[in-house]
Amino acid sequence: MNKKRFEKQLAFILEADKEKNILRQTHLSGHGRRENDAEHAWHMAMMIYLLKEYANEDFDVAKAMMMALVHDIVEIDAGDTYAYDTKAKETQKAREEKAADRIFGMLPEDQRDELRTLFEEFEAGKSPEARFAKVMDNFQPLLLNNSNGGADWREHKVSRTKVVGRHQTSSLGSEEIWKYTEELINANVEKGNIIDN
Amino acid sequence: MNKKRFEKQLAFILEADKEKNILRQTHLSGHGRRENDAEHAWHMAMMIYLLKEYANEDFDVAKAMMMALVHDIVEIDAGDTYAYDTKAKETQKAREEKAADRIFGMLPEDQRDELRTLFEEFEAGKSPEARFAKVMDNFQPLLLNNSNGGADWREHKVSRTKVVGRHQTSSLGSEEIWKYTEELINANVEKGNIIDN
Repeated sequence: MNKKRFEKQLAFILEADKEKNILRQTHLSGHGRRENDAEHAWHMAMMIYLLKEYANEDFDVAKAMMMALVHDIVEIDAGDTYAYDTKAKETQKAREEKAADRIFGMLPEDQRDELRTLFEEFEAGKSPEARFAKVMDNFQPLLLNNSNGGADWREHKVSRTKVVGRHQTSSLGSEEIWKYTEELINANVEKGNIIDN
Repeated sequence: MNKKRFEKQLAFILEADKEKNILRQTHLSGHGRRENDAEHAWHMAMMIYLLKEYANEDFDVAKAMMMALVHDIVEIDAGDTYAYDTKAKETQKAREEKAADRIFGMLPEDQRDELRTLFEEFEAGKSPEARFAKVMDNFQPLLLNNSNGGADWREHKVSRTKVVGRHQTSSLGSEEIWKYTEELINANVEKGNIIDN
């Protein structure tokens, strides 16, 4: 073992611990407290493994799971940007790139580059792994929110156009899950949980 | 898509959400609050991917990551059993088997069997994936606890024999990480964080 290399890896792993304190807008099922980034990523990675049969393309499962596990790590510095907060979304990219430099920079060079690539691929949806992981990034909170009677949508007065916009890339990762998602969205519009526009 | 199959998968995924409410004895870095099962599993899966080069044997990374993600799911019914609580450990196996029947039983049969196998393999350490995942199950809380000046060990007055006992299978998964762990344990004994016996 190269101890210097190992300790860089451990420093990154310990830094990642901070994700457990970054709260999202989504609430846990059973109208629970707000979810944090680590919990969301754990759920996404599990979903990638369990739902892989619905992906449009073959993909590397371990790679997609790791992508899910670290996709929000930049929020340690950049904070969580709510999917429907237009103003915060304007500065999101610059804030997150800076954070990626620092946080992935803690790793040994080969892993710094590997994880940075995973992160960029995810953001741009430019690989089969990224396209499927992005489906989970959107479907996971929808599932929780739906189980809570759409409480998060109602609180933020979210419209159908905004929800559908968020899921606009989902059909690229999974036509089948996107179809199911569309039905869930429609059902929530009918119930008045999502504003019809 | 077979909707009935998909909805069984979703029911399991939603049930898993409850892991976010199961607290462990370990505290987050920075002397934070107690960690929950989902956060612990997220951290473990990330560590499996980042530290795979130190495994004694080749292994299937996605399988090991999934094993880590679900290894504590039985605690939804059975509760968390602290590694150093001798009394609770006596009834742990029976409680966890019953929980595994119910929770994995929510999945379609093929995935019920697959995940049950992952769970049993992990418990028994009977595959390369299980042996490496078990290293992470023990090393992850040690890393957090070490970063907190050994506060969890001091609170529970844990002895060197007990800590080493917990890590007894680690060398089967990774000789290298076990060696590093042993040094960390010794350093914490020297500092008085772990009782020398």
